[in-house]
Amino acid sequence: MNKYIEEKIQTFKARNKNRARLLINCPDQPGIVAAVSQFLYGYGANIIESDQYTMDPMGGNFFIRIEFECDGLNEKGSQLEENFLSVAEKFNLDWKIMYVREIKNMAVFVSKEPHCLLELLWEFQSGNIMANIAVVISNHETARDMVESLGIPFYYIPSNRDIRKQVEEEQKELLEKYEIDVIVLARYMQILSPTFVEDYQHRIINIHHSFLPAFIGAKPYERAFDRGVKMIGATSHYVTNDLDEGPIIEQDIDRVDHRDNVDAMKKTGQSIERSVLTRSVKWHLDDRIIVEGNKTIVF
Amino acid sequence: MNKYIEEKIQTFKARNKNRARLLINCPDQPGIVAAVSQFLYGYGANIIESDQYTMDPMGGNFFIRIEFECDGLNEKGSQLEENFLSVAEKFNLDWKIMYVREIKNMAVFVSKEPHCLLELLWEFQSGNIMANIAVVISNHETARDMVESLGIPFYYIPSNRDIRKQVEEEQKELLEKYEIDVIVLARYMQILSPTFVEDYQHRIINIHHSFLPAFIGAKPYERAFDRGVKMIGATSHYVTNDLDEGPIIEQDIDRVDHRDNVDAMKKTGQSIERSVLTRSVKWHLDDRIIVEGNKTIVF
Amino acid sequence: MNKYIEEKIQTFKARNKNRARLLINCPDQPGIVAAVSQFLYGYGANIIESDQYTMDPMGGNFFIRIEFECDGLNEKGSQLEENFLSVAEKFNLDWKIMYVREIKNMAVFVSKEPHCLLELLWEFQSGNIMANIAVVISNHETARDMVESLGIPFYYIPSNRDIRKQVEEEQKELLEKYEIDVIVLARYMQILSPTFVEDYQHRIINIHHSFLPAFIGAKPYERAFDRGVKMIGATSHYVTNDLDEGPIIEQDIDRVDHRDNVDAMKKTGQSIERSVLTRSVKWHLDDRIIVEGNKTIVF
Amino acid sequence: MNKYIEEKIQTFKARNKNRARLLINCPDQPGIVAAVSQFLYGYGANIIESDQYTMDPMGGNFFIRIEFECDGLNEKGSQLEENFLSVAEKFNLDWKIMYVREIKNMAVFVSKEPHCLLELLWEFQSGNIMANIAVVISNHETARDMVESLGIPFYYIPSNRDIRKQVEEEQKELLEKYEIDVIVLARYMQILSPTFVEDYQHRIINIHHSFLPAFIGAKPYERAFDRGVKMIGATSHYVTNDLDEGPIIEQDIDRVDHRDNVDAMKKTGQSIERSVLTRSVKWHLDDRIIVEGNKTIVF
Repeated sequence: MNKYIEEKIQTFKARNKNRARLLINCPDQPGIVAAVSQFLYGYGANIIESDQYTMDPMGGNFFIRIEFECDGLNEKGSQLEENFLSVAEKFNLDWKIMYVREIKNMAVFVSKEPHCLLELLWEFQSGNIMANIAVVISNHETARDMVESLGIPFYYIPSNRDIRKQVEEEQKELLEKYEIDVIVLARYMQILSPTFVEDYQHRIINIHHSFLPAFIGAKPYERAFDRGVKMIGATSHYVTNDLDEGPIIEQDIDRVDHRDNVDAMKKTGQSIERSVLTRSVKWHLDDRIIVEGNKTIVF
Repeated sequence: MNKYIEEKIQTFKARNKNRARLLINCPDQPGIVAAVSQFLYGYGANIIESDQYTMDPMGGNFFIRIEFECDGLNEKGSQLEENFLSVAEKFNLDWKIMYVREIKNMAVFVSKEPHCLLELLWEFQSGNIMANIAVVISNHETARDMVESLGIPFYYIPSNRDIRKQVEEEQKELLEKYEIDVIVLARYMQILSPTFVEDYQHRIINIHHSFLPAFIGAKPYERAFDRGVKMIGATSHYVTNDLDEGPIIEQDIDRVDHRDNVDAMKKTGQSIERSVLTRSVKWHLDDRIIVEGNKTIVF
Repeated sequence: MNKYIEEKIQTFKARNKNRARLLINCPDQPGIVAAVSQFLYGYGANIIESDQYTMDPMGGNFFIRIEFECDGLNEKGSQLEENFLSVAEKFNLDWKIMYVREIKNMAVFVSKEPHCLLELLWEFQSGNIMANIAVVISNHETARDMVESLGIPFYYIPSNRDIRKQVEEEQKELLEKYEIDVIVLARYMQILSPTFVEDYQHRIINIHHSFLPAFIGAKPYERAFDRGVKMIGATSHYVTNDLDEGPIIEQDIDRVDHRDNVDAMKKTGQSIERSVLTRSVKWHLDDRIIVEGNKTIVF
Repeated sequence: MNKYIEEKIQTFKARNKNRARLLINCPDQPGIVAAVSQFLYGYGANIIESDQYTMDPMGGNFFIRIEFECDGLNEKGSQLEENFLSVAEKFNLDWKIMYVREIKNMAVFVSKEPHCLLELLWEFQSGNIMANIAVVISNHETARDMVESLGIPFYYIPSNRDIRKQVEEEQKELLEKYEIDVIVLARYMQILSPTFVEDYQHRIINIHHSFLPAFIGAKPYERAFDRGVKMIGATSHYVTNDLDEGPIIEQDIDRVDHRDNVDAMKKTGQSIERSVLTRSVKWHLDDRIIVEGNKTIVF
């Protein structure tokens, strides 16, 4: 990675060495907030942000994301987690703590159209995407130059339906080598096999170039044009084994009119795809997304 | 109709007594604009607005909407139309002239939810919808008071699938009695029979409470909620005999999030439905919409 | 008030008899959330919604809005408040508890243009504005019919700069008579005197027909037109004694272009004004707004 | 320039060798459209797009932009222009013909923040900005690498108020050397001298980081934060000698809330600045903008 970005990352880590996020998902019941906030207070933690949501006030699930600052977190962290077990048990919590200083390793998969990748790289360079973009994997050579110019390794792995198994073997080796936490499909036009998807459950983010559930599958702009819609959209979602049916993270749209042919729609759409995907990636990196069933809660 | 609205309509008619709109749809070829504008100039007409669109620069259809002002139009109109026939023949034009002073007679069909009707009535009162809302027909009594308070006749015709034929007979009598030019389905939850639709081709405007083609058919908000979308929308379209498949006139959307249950989505959606339907009705009344195949050109 | 609305209000009160909102503003320090949530838990209260904000993580102010459900709140309320004093004292809290069943009494002031009032009345009728619109006061007769048709008292008090003192005396008598909690200036084109404003600090909501701070003062649409802007907006804010300088609650905009003259801008603007004002009023009624200095925190 | 972009430009020129745009601004009078379209028809030209606008139907100015395709335009062009003089004289037209194959030479001025430049370069690479970005001039070295990597000359000219005269001399030499048609100030934080501005009247496009006329001048995000606005914006305009008062081309906004500090506003704002400036540049390159007084007509 180039020196300039490396420096930004180090500054970020230093500034956030005492910062963590606690995510909880559990059956709703009185006393959870009291118990958790009391526990954190006991460690001298100051709650910086807290968002909560009760799925249905009477009897549903309860979700909370707490971001806190705690002196000496590096040293206290593991003990804090251990002691939290009793709280977790009492309230039957599904929980995790994410340390902000441990930035995530990201792999980007891309095919021929580089606009989404470019936006990610640009936000990465600007310090707005705080991850380690460890590797870019593509079934085309198009993006090699722009990726390598930032000091990021680029792997060209040609791909098609017939050799998927072998391709995914190579990809998995790279994902392991670079200890990847999250995979971003930045207009990667290949379908992943079920086992691949399961290995990275809720950790593969895809951008689909339509306002889902309209125009699931191939050629959404062509079909939007044929239907004569007045708006086109893009949708980011976690990948599941039902094509374009995974939990939606974010959507956005823009206006088109009768003057826009398919090419014009694609150009407009690229701009939406770029921003929708980038927002989703940022939320994922900030641990703002909780998946519940086939939906997301975005705090 | 009450006196205040009647007065607005008379003022509008007087101010527009020399104003007309010429709509043309024809195979593209050089010389059309020259011939048409030369023709209008010959009558002393001044072109106020002109919008054109060529479907595909090489070999497609050509569409133009010209709004013009012409002294003594009331007297010259029929002669102008007669003489235009030779131009129309030469270029094989599909055309019509609409006189702005001849405001359209509108019928509104509504079921239980009155929000779209209310918006139309409010825009009507404000002079923003320049039509004669001649009659409101409903299969519920809910809206009677608000309609009659404006001096508009209200007819309650209970309806269901089994008695559709008889209901439509009654409706058609009313449409004839009030010489209706355009029907607005302002959340009218009954399906119209094929012959009814054909009698008013491209003159029945419906509002569907989803971002079509997502959630065609019943209970779109419920299905949007189940899918976990991050935006909900509404779509206005001309009614055809394929449910929710008619030419789209306008669409709009608004954001929702995980906190919004079905009821909250409905409330947000009502606001979108109101504005999308109202915009469409205004465009129709201004003769801004040309239907071509299953699409609209909105000038 | 008419029976239909009265019924909606009664249902709302019954459904929310155990619901309250606790609003806190205090210097940031560890332990607040723990103490407050522990306190509520002690009363068997279940936290339904909680939003918090720390102005500056290191040393700024802390704000929280907690909505909770508590069995027997009607009986427990005063004791709960009394016992909360010790928590409040310990953390130096500026706080209040609002009981959802105690819906607010609202007065609407309006001049000649009724669009904002109409939107409020429509949302009121629909049960989306849960307040008691107790009185409408106007310096024009325009709105009398629509107001009285809902059973709401309407007072016509002609007004101008020279008789402001006397006019405000009459207005204040009405405000006292109807025990008004919040005043909405729904395009009321008169300036209120400083003492009037002070008596209702952070309880008078105004809609200004521009995107503040652009076009402060009179004739904003005319000035927007002269400047050739490509978007117009509206701003709602709490009234202070600096004209159009009070804490902004909400803003929105819409596109205009060179074809829009001042009248067209006004029509577009009315639609923005309606929705911006209505959103603000709902947030105020839901106790979602905390004023801090000259800014609002909207939870 | 790199080979890939060069190729795109050549393809574009070849495809548009017979395409031109006629822009007219004149006093309104009947017969203009007829005369102009008749004239073009006489040359066998086919009108592809035509947009017109009459400033005030009774007695104002008339504006039209006609895009046409004409076989052998390269050869016929000068004769066509010569013969058009008689039409122009008859109707007192202010007019110009722009040949689409003659793509414009663009200079970009930038200071420290590269986001707007980057967006322009990215759209340039993608073939969405059809100009020859001939030179980038900056008073910082920040952008050198990204510019030179595309084969575009980059000049570092340190600048401040005291040496403005000398700096502008150097800049002007470069503008002449590269035969610049249009200058884009992509967050160039220096004020240009009056003579410089006059030399490039309506050919210098600036992006201002606020929703003008709010926050004219320095530090708009800081002032937006202090005022507590709920939306921030950006404005592109042609540069005149009144700071931030030139004819507005485009504006856009995005939402912020109490959680956004100045830095967060800047990041949100950068995204708006990028898209607003890029849209404006595209419209300028497509000859869609006519300046009239201190306003723009954007066709």
